[in-house]
Amino acid sequence: MADYVAPLRDIRFVLDEIVDLPALQKLNGYAHADRELVFAALDEGARFIQDLVAPLNRVGDTTGSLLQADGTVVTPPGFKEAYQHYVDAAWGGVDFPAEWGGHGMPKVVGMAFEEILTAANMAFSLCPLLTFGAIDALLEHGSQNQQAIYLPKLISGEWSATMNLTEPQAGSDLGALSTRAVLQDDGTYRISGSKIFITWGDHDLANNIVHLVLARTPDAPPGTRGISMFIVPKYLPGTSDEPGEANDVQVVSLEHKLGIHASPTCVMAFGDNEGAVGYLLGEENQGMANMFTMMNAARVSVGLQGLALSERAYQDAKAYSLERRQGKAIGSTTGPNPIVDHANVRRMLMTMRSNIEAMRALMYTTAEHEDHADHGGDQETRDWHRDVVALLTPVVKTWGSDLGVEMTSIAIQVFGGMGFVEETGVAQHWRDIRIAPIYEGTNGIQAIDLVLRKLPLREGTFVSDYLDQLEASAAGLEALEGFEAASSALRTGFDALRAATGWLLAHRDDPNEVLAGATPYCRSFGVLAGGAMLAKAALATDDPAKRTVARFYLEQ
Amino acid sequence: MADYVAPLRDIRFVLDEIVDLPALQKLNGYAHADRELVFAALDEGARFIQDLVAPLNRVGDTTGSLLQADGTVVTPPGFKEAYQHYVDAAWGGVDFPAEWGGHGMPKVVGMAFEEILTAANMAFSLCPLLTFGAIDALLEHGSQNQQAIYLPKLISGEWSATMNLTEPQAGSDLGALSTRAVLQDDGTYRISGSKIFITWGDHDLANNIVHLVLARTPDAPPGTRGISMFIVPKYLPGTSDEPGEANDVQVVSLEHKLGIHASPTCVMAFGDNEGAVGYLLGEENQGMANMFTMMNAARVSVGLQGLALSERAYQDAKAYSLERRQGKAIGSTTGPNPIVDHANVRRMLMTMRSNIEAMRALMYTTAEHEDHADHGGDQETRDWHRDVVALLTPVVKTWGSDLGVEMTSIAIQVFGGMGFVEETGVAQHWRDIRIAPIYEGTNGIQAIDLVLRKLPLREGTFVSDYLDQLEASAAGLEALEGFEAASSALRTGFDALRAATGWLLAHRDDPNEVLAGATPYCRSFGVLAGGAMLAKAALATDDPAKRTVARFYLEQ
Repeated sequence: MADYVAPLRDIRFVLDEIVDLPALQKLNGYAHADRELVFAALDEGARFIQDLVAPLNRVGDTTGSLLQADGTVVTPPGFKEAYQHYVDAAWGGVDFPAEWGGHGMPKVVGMAFEEILTAANMAFSLCPLLTFGAIDALLEHGSQNQQAIYLPKLISGEWSATMNLTEPQAGSDLGALSTRAVLQDDGTYRISGSKIFITWGDHDLANNIVHLVLARTPDAPPGTRGISMFIVPKYLPGTSDEPGEANDVQVVSLEHKLGIHASPTCVMAFGDNEGAVGYLLGEENQGMANMFTMMNAARVSVGLQGLALSERAYQDAKAYSLERRQGKAIGSTTGPNPIVDHANVRRMLMTMRSNIEAMRALMYTTAEHEDHADHGGDQETRDWHRDVVALLTPVVKTWGSDLGVEMTSIAIQVFGGMGFVEETGVAQHWRDIRIAPIYEGTNGIQAIDLVLRKLPLREGTFVSDYLDQLEASAAGLEALEGFEAASSALRTGFDALRAATGWLLAHRDDPNEVLAGATPYCRSFGVLAGGAMLAKAALATDDPAKRTVARFYLEQ
Repeated sequence: MADYVAPLRDIRFVLDEIVDLPALQKLNGYAHADRELVFAALDEGARFIQDLVAPLNRVGDTTGSLLQADGTVVTPPGFKEAYQHYVDAAWGGVDFPAEWGGHGMPKVVGMAFEEILTAANMAFSLCPLLTFGAIDALLEHGSQNQQAIYLPKLISGEWSATMNLTEPQAGSDLGALSTRAVLQDDGTYRISGSKIFITWGDHDLANNIVHLVLARTPDAPPGTRGISMFIVPKYLPGTSDEPGEANDVQVVSLEHKLGIHASPTCVMAFGDNEGAVGYLLGEENQGMANMFTMMNAARVSVGLQGLALSERAYQDAKAYSLERRQGKAIGSTTGPNPIVDHANVRRMLMTMRSNIEAMRALMYTTAEHEDHADHGGDQETRDWHRDVVALLTPVVKTWGSDLGVEMTSIAIQVFGGMGFVEETGVAQHWRDIRIAPIYEGTNGIQAIDLVLRKLPLREGTFVSDYLDQLEASAAGLEALEGFEAASSALRTGFDALRAATGWLLAHRDDPNEVLAGATPYCRSFGVLAGGAMLAKAALATDDPAKRTVARFYLEQ
């Protein structure tokens, strides 16, 4: 397996040519985020991740996190040290507010850091990722007191966090969940119930683990309208800086999974004894709203995992194809040639690279929209960008995660028989990423969300306005030498996507038809949006490599 | 995981409506193979496989085959007993000649048995599969004496066989191999060299293992023209019925693989001591021809593995979707409903089922062509069918193996989070089948074979004649109620395939262009041929389920 090298050149290209970094710097609160600072921060972050996190990916897979007899979880060798460095260097706060100890960088910078961390070690990256979600929920819904207690610790990474949603009978349908929360005289709640699939539910990296738990109060209405969210820390916050008394929270077991073995997936028991102490986050029965705050950001991150592992697998495949010699390439008089010289191997590598560049451009653009949604000058602008993010979230999640599975599989194929041997490491990427189309809402459910909830935004005018804007970013492509076929393919694609959009909006009263078509529609949306991004890239540069990648993608 | 049930109803449908079994019975040597006997044999075989082989699939995965300190390989618990039953009941000889102890059934019947065995336990099935390849090679190229010694033992399954092709520096390019074979005064050879990726290279199921080894004699010409094939048994055949003296063959190590853990993939050392005794099979320097005899049949079998594991995964997914209740389906007033009621889950199941039926029809038809090629009345007929098999072999191999990966992945998706948990068993199918697009010639190489060697058969007239015949099997589809769109899609598809075929034949002098397009072309060929088969199925039956499956496939 090749050493992972953060693709800083490609990331800088997107930050320079696709995303408008100077425009972000003009937004409220981002004045300090100039190009030099951003690039320097990414360079430094990349060095740490390459040196300390990436080398642990394989041992994480072979050893995995293990549940000890005393009920605690031990992470693979080296994880504790790498995580401590992450905390010491304050990498947990890249795009969180300075008032709570973060660096206050734009989301797009946070995303670049996250891509690198995920590519280096997806299982490791899930621990911070869950923490990020909890930070978002606390920033949006926490009381001042809760923010003061939890935000500095979570942003520094000294404490980590989890999302406790799923129960055995309540997976995609959270309305069916039955964990109970009973109000006490002191204003706290006692939580009792079981949760499954709790990522990093316990471990030895952080001093405390803050569980955000969905539960029902005794008199709550049925279904999703009766769900509340509670903060249930592993150790109750003490009066000093150190965590206090242990809460009534146990790890029952760990799942034996297909991939991300270093990420402990826990079955959790809350309140088996005296009841776990929980603090209401936000209002009673508003748990679903809090959860969506966490989950929407997480969904984009899951799409990003697809990009990150595709990049990692691409680096492995490319290195192997340069090193492995086999057969005689066309036009070669001496063999054996490196397999990269064979047309079929080149096609595979080009497929990976072009999809990776399309994903990166669209995903970073999504983060840019988030920045404008959070920091834009006026309400109308913020609303527009908020709606773009809402529209793109299911697209990025499904398209990115599906491509992650497909691109890592292509990497295995480049390795041939060695790809099926675990020691090579490339099969791990494929196993690791297979969770991405499933968790944070299955891709099938994402596609339904796109079609039933996002297309109808603003009476359906929003999506067509957005598609116009997207296609406009490719304006002028037809005039670019060699891009005639590519430009015409893109135009045809947009016409078909508009027709499908119109059909889906017109048939909203026939949900079975609409739902059965949702998945292919969602995929096409991603493919086309990615195409528009690469068209923009081709127009922005005369780098022949970037242009070749764009043309290859658009002509496929 | 659901118990595997052999899909006998679907198999009988293909044997009755797609394949012409009565026509096969009229061929030389197949008179005894009447419908009743064939179906009774499949019923009995299916019972044995369901009861004894299928239940070992999971323990095969979790335990794996292991290399002992004494250099022998031990298979997982239960494998020895199941294999012994396989030998006792003479299941190894379904479609091999009666004169050597086989049942002399048509290949199409052998394929049905092979599908069931593979679906039950792919890792287990590879041991007989390799033996089948060696039987083919011995039938075609062995001397009378060699046939008399090896065929009865291999056909009964008392002995198994391996293919020893790959060396570290010689994977896809066999011309680079360097194992040496030196002629001795007694007419035998001494073999020395290392081989890798040797499937079932050693194990405890059979009394003897017959290695077929590619090697070079000292004065052989370079490249593939200087390769010979040798029979190198683990134990030299003795004078009695029992195997004799141990040969100089060692297992060096086993690969730690992504899947098929019960199938020991060995690194083999031949002749580390006095030199391994080998017997020339066929002529010196004719090893490649012998190898293709083994490999062409094996390639179709690898495509069949894609069908088999898709079927197995489909059964698991369907059972889960009926049992797992979640959310409220459209039009339902009470929930939770079984997830099979959700449009998106139904779409996934239907995608699996329709592809499975298309694969089964095309693959069994390929076996039917083999039967006509082997037993047809006149040379012209036999040649025609031989060429069809040659044309379809790379198509079946790539399309089937790629679909195997895709369909088993869809099955994981139906399971949601549980699909990522190994105990469910569905992830194993996906891991197991991932080798299929790689081994027996990577899918990239298969596509090149199709385009550069198979399309030009008979100056390119053959492929267009065959496509005409294939499309003719769908004649009348447009008149079938509800099939207007399906029929038009099929016609459009065939037109596009013919255009692509013409383009590829016209551009044979620009190999880089042709080779880069080979993979998508090969895929389209499979998709269209499968579509023609399902059209034939829809025309042959008024079973509404079969017709719905065909329409769904054709409209996608």
